[in-house]
Amino acid sequence: MFSMIRVATIDTSSQLASSFINSQRLWDRHMEMAKIGATPAGGVNRAALTALDNDARALFTRWAKDLEFPSSIDPMGNLFVRRPGLDLDAAPVMSGSHLDTQPSGGRFDGIYGVLCALEALQAIDAAGVKTRRPIEAAVWTNEEGVRFQPGCMGSLGFTHPQRLEQLLEAKDDDGVTLRQAVRTLKERIPEAVEQSPHRPVAAFVEAHIEQGPVLEQSGNTIGIVSGIQGTRRFHVEITGEDAHAGTTPRSRRKDALSAAVAMVSALEAVFHDDPDDVTRFTVGAFNVKPNAESVVPGYVMFSIDFRQPEETVIARLGDQVETLCQRNAGRCEVRVTQTSRTPPIRFEGLVPDTILNVTQQLNLSHMHIYSGAGHDAQHLFNICPTGMIFVPCKGGVSHNESEYATPADLADGARVLTDTLVQLANSPD
Amino acid sequence: MFSMIRVATIDTSSQLASSFINSQRLWDRHMEMAKIGATPAGGVNRAALTALDNDARALFTRWAKDLEFPSSIDPMGNLFVRRPGLDLDAAPVMSGSHLDTQPSGGRFDGIYGVLCALEALQAIDAAGVKTRRPIEAAVWTNEEGVRFQPGCMGSLGFTHPQRLEQLLEAKDDDGVTLRQAVRTLKERIPEAVEQSPHRPVAAFVEAHIEQGPVLEQSGNTIGIVSGIQGTRRFHVEITGEDAHAGTTPRSRRKDALSAAVAMVSALEAVFHDDPDDVTRFTVGAFNVKPNAESVVPGYVMFSIDFRQPEETVIARLGDQVETLCQRNAGRCEVRVTQTSRTPPIRFEGLVPDTILNVTQQLNLSHMHIYSGAGHDAQHLFNICPTGMIFVPCKGGVSHNESEYATPADLADGARVLTDTLVQLANSPD
Repeated sequence: MFSMIRVATIDTSSQLASSFINSQRLWDRHMEMAKIGATPAGGVNRAALTALDNDARALFTRWAKDLEFPSSIDPMGNLFVRRPGLDLDAAPVMSGSHLDTQPSGGRFDGIYGVLCALEALQAIDAAGVKTRRPIEAAVWTNEEGVRFQPGCMGSLGFTHPQRLEQLLEAKDDDGVTLRQAVRTLKERIPEAVEQSPHRPVAAFVEAHIEQGPVLEQSGNTIGIVSGIQGTRRFHVEITGEDAHAGTTPRSRRKDALSAAVAMVSALEAVFHDDPDDVTRFTVGAFNVKPNAESVVPGYVMFSIDFRQPEETVIARLGDQVETLCQRNAGRCEVRVTQTSRTPPIRFEGLVPDTILNVTQQLNLSHMHIYSGAGHDAQHLFNICPTGMIFVPCKGGVSHNESEYATPADLADGARVLTDTLVQLANSPD
Repeated sequence: MFSMIRVATIDTSSQLASSFINSQRLWDRHMEMAKIGATPAGGVNRAALTALDNDARALFTRWAKDLEFPSSIDPMGNLFVRRPGLDLDAAPVMSGSHLDTQPSGGRFDGIYGVLCALEALQAIDAAGVKTRRPIEAAVWTNEEGVRFQPGCMGSLGFTHPQRLEQLLEAKDDDGVTLRQAVRTLKERIPEAVEQSPHRPVAAFVEAHIEQGPVLEQSGNTIGIVSGIQGTRRFHVEITGEDAHAGTTPRSRRKDALSAAVAMVSALEAVFHDDPDDVTRFTVGAFNVKPNAESVVPGYVMFSIDFRQPEETVIARLGDQVETLCQRNAGRCEVRVTQTSRTPPIRFEGLVPDTILNVTQQLNLSHMHIYSGAGHDAQHLFNICPTGMIFVPCKGGVSHNESEYATPADLADGARVLTDTLVQLANSPD
């Protein structure tokens, strides 16, 4: 374990590593990364472990290699870039996020957390700061849950050993398993060595754009994240009967689309909490078969994404989904499956306290803020002290091609992350 | 024009041509044709002018060629197989339907009308019956409207010269025009000679499965179709804004799916005519973008297929579509486009009278029946005396892979068609 002698080698009097953050370099890397899967409207479409996502990871690995940080990859395809510490036995402090995006995603969601971690490693190196613990920049696999379900899959597999095998068998729409997709990724990045699936982590910090309007509206640069709301996701599958739109009377129809519309209406009536507007209820995916204009649809599958900060509300509302769907199924069959459930969590103690100290030291405007979005940090929270740093994003817009954050805010977030990582990497056990 | 001398050459004393209908042969051709685009569940998926549809037309042309009936093809890709008449100047009597299907279609809808017409030509030939007018079996292009819109496109172009050029420029989802697709078809069937786009037709008869339960429930074999209900079709396009499902409060959302659900609910409330159940209102296609579980959808397009026998009701209800959609658009933009409008029609006079006479002569159970489905006959109705013959289909089920009609009913329909065509081909001008 750690010895007193090696502590003495740490130079804590050197210039703050955060002063080596290069705003232009950080911005340029965002723009370079955004070319991979760029959409005509200025966003990014880069689903997990596709050729594009693998290209993005290869670029990230190349940048790390140029800085002489070695890379490793674990069975879930999570990618780690390491700056060694003085204590060879110490668990790493980690920071990172994801490089995959929504189909009409932006250039910052997830990507910022990854590039910010690399920028921090580079700045710490440039400052000549030595740390007891190693620091790693992590790229978690499939945070967005577009190609494979559930989302935040990489960090889930890393932190929950009992889930690993099942997650590796997840299939995309073409029947490709995650296991196969990771194999392809490994071929693309041969320089990344094999990493074990589960490891102790000393602490985890994730930097991210806010994805909401609070920081911008309040004029604060840094959000110290106090927690993440809970999420329940469902798939609702409705089976009716294909029928001729001109000849089939309504009394004889088993119209899956009509049933789905009745279900969504009924769910909205229960989940909409005007005027509080705290509960998030979204039907994002809605697939109809045969999806032909003159055929009464015999099949619909729609998704429900439901989020709330209060566990009692999550339980009360979420438990009504199946009943409300059954009650509005008409002559159709309906099957409701809960695909994921994540409790609300609170970030407290070491990590948010360190972020607050550093932010005050750097004299940046800041506030405590609650996260509406889910993040990989919520899984890391299960195995180590965890926290998040938010920076403002324009108009609170995210999961949208117009997503934007300023170079100055991104750099300030990187400064906070950098000194936070140094402090965490030198903190006592 | 026609001379009295040539009338004298017609042998009206020969055995009825209908007695040469071969039930097994007609059934076998259905089963052979159903192999092209066969689905695992026993149906057919054969969109217009795809490689599969072209294969089906090539098979049909080969059968005709084996019987020494020449084929021709017009600019819309409509395919004609001809048994010449004695009067070389006379306009043909035509019969036919379509070979394309819905994505989860059956083995009889459309196909029966085409194969029945060929069976009739073969029976008339076998009987040695001479007719004054030629008789043609027609395959109309893209009746189902799956690949190109609108449906019944081939017969529309044939009967409406002013629409031809516009229809030829219709594009499928991949941007392929109908004109290009017809070129590919022509390469597949080189033996079919070029046919002019518009021609006089002496009379048109279409045989079809009922696609409803009336004949089966009443125990009648032959339906003499008295008319076709009117149809209006719409596309409703809703534009909102993609947003993050976890962070975007409802008050800031422009949720296109939520708006679409509100519109469909409002439309259903107005269009559902319980307990009469006469109006047919169907939302068959419903497409969401980006269609991702954790993104508030910024775009939805849904279709409306609305049919009714009464023109006043068609006008009154159809004219409310746009208002109802606008009223339920919330914070989204909505654009409503009427993509087609077909008035209700009545089949009267020569053709249905001839069908009735023949049916009585053959001593088959029969009734007058109204068509809920649209058919190519509704366009031919604009240029010549027109009628339709229905045969029962199991459970009234159509536009469904389980669609079924018995070999005996199919053969009885063919018998009625055969003698009807002979009488029409020899009727006075």
